[in-house]
Amino acid sequence: MANLTELMKNEVFMAFATYATIVLSKMMFMSTATAFYRLTKKVFANPEDCSGLGENAKKYLRTDERVERVRRAHLNDLENIVPFLGIGLLYSLSGPDLSTAILHFRLFVGARIYHTIAYLTPLPQPNRALAFFLGYGVTLSMAYRLLRSILYL
Amino acid sequence: MANLTELMKNEVFMAFATYATIVLSKMMFMSTATAFYRLTKKVFANPEDCSGLGENAKKYLRTDERVERVRRAHLNDLENIVPFLGIGLLYSLSGPDLSTAILHFRLFVGARIYHTIAYLTPLPQPNRALAFFLGYGVTLSMAYRLLRSILYL
Amino acid sequence: MANLTELMKNEVFMAFATYATIVLSKMMFMSTATAFYRLTKKVFANPEDCSGLGENAKKYLRTDERVERVRRAHLNDLENIVPFLGIGLLYSLSGPDLSTAILHFRLFVGARIYHTIAYLTPLPQPNRALAFFLGYGVTLSMAYRLLRSILYL
Repeated sequence: MANLTELMKNEVFMAFATYATIVLSKMMFMSTATAFYRLTKKVFANPEDCSGLGENAKKYLRTDERVERVRRAHLNDLENIVPFLGIGLLYSLSGPDLSTAILHFRLFVGARIYHTIAYLTPLPQPNRALAFFLGYGVTLSMAYRLLRSILYL
Repeated sequence: MANLTELMKNEVFMAFATYATIVLSKMMFMSTATAFYRLTKKVFANPEDCSGLGENAKKYLRTDERVERVRRAHLNDLENIVPFLGIGLLYSLSGPDLSTAILHFRLFVGARIYHTIAYLTPLPQPNRALAFFLGYGVTLSMAYRLLRSILYL
Repeated sequence: MANLTELMKNEVFMAFATYATIVLSKMMFMSTATAFYRLTKKVFANPEDCSGLGENAKKYLRTDERVERVRRAHLNDLENIVPFLGIGLLYSLSGPDLSTAILHFRLFVGARIYHTIAYLTPLPQPNRALAFFLGYGVTLSMAYRLLRSILYL
């Protein structure tokens, strides 16, 4: 198991593992937020979810702008965090400079947390757009550095 | 290639690779299930998908509760399996106890398979909710153990 | 850091890193395509996104078939690229034959690029269906080879 021990002694990899875990936990929080709004606002997608609410339960099978907003934020997270995970993991293994790598990870995680705040509050534009493009740019920057160092077609 | 050979001799990593492949294959099955219901129920999202069904093909551009249910189950899979993949991979590399790690992987995969059964049947609540929270808790437990052992901000 | 250097000297792993980065960058392009259509067609999901468009801005809170098409293509990417990333990474670490592995990666990336072209043009069926099933089959083939070499339950 020498290798694994070595891998987790690599500072860039440890930093990636830490920031990836934080941003994934943040994304998981969106599920809880959706459930919270569904329950407090009584807005359900499936008949079995509101069958305990009495005879007129079917009227709770509806959509609600608040719930849809959380779901859009969650989907946007998925669309952006999946590339960060894949490209970030490979970038971390390509031997980047530690401080450069950590700067990328911090900017991405900060941008995604701010994106969620801007989406759920909601803050006026361009708050959300800037948070989105910052995270997007960070991922593209890692992709560029990774391909420059290991391109193999 | 010594390293890679070593990595795949690590039992925790092999177990993670096995369970991750199983749960991803299960998720891929949802695409097939969606296609199956779309074709048998003639419910399409794109005009080109039903253009071979004759002159009145446009009437098949509709939504159907059965198809939407499979799509919700698929999206819920994505939202939960992505964090499991990222956190589980890094957790596997952080040198956890073998039996603890395998318990986490088995519970997660079992919970997601049961979640799919509960969603598609559908089983009455709280079957689906419990399956969801079991998988959610397993992922958070791995995230906690990972951060405790390698936190690097 | 000897290990990481070694890992990135492994040709299969370098090839996987390259193709994964390419296909993830392609997926990220879908966000830009959605934003492009939303702005040029004035079709928005959130009130704050069109608040600068004057008094009647609320009328731009609508859906549009063109935008929905890009979003379906994006979601289909997510549903298929996530299994490729997870299974492909683990497959790359399981010591496969280099030319076999590169064939898998090239077919998958080619299939997904063609899938996007077929979805956005749109090309008549079965163009998109064939592209989908090619990528799907490649991922299942990697899953089978991976489980055959490292199954550990």
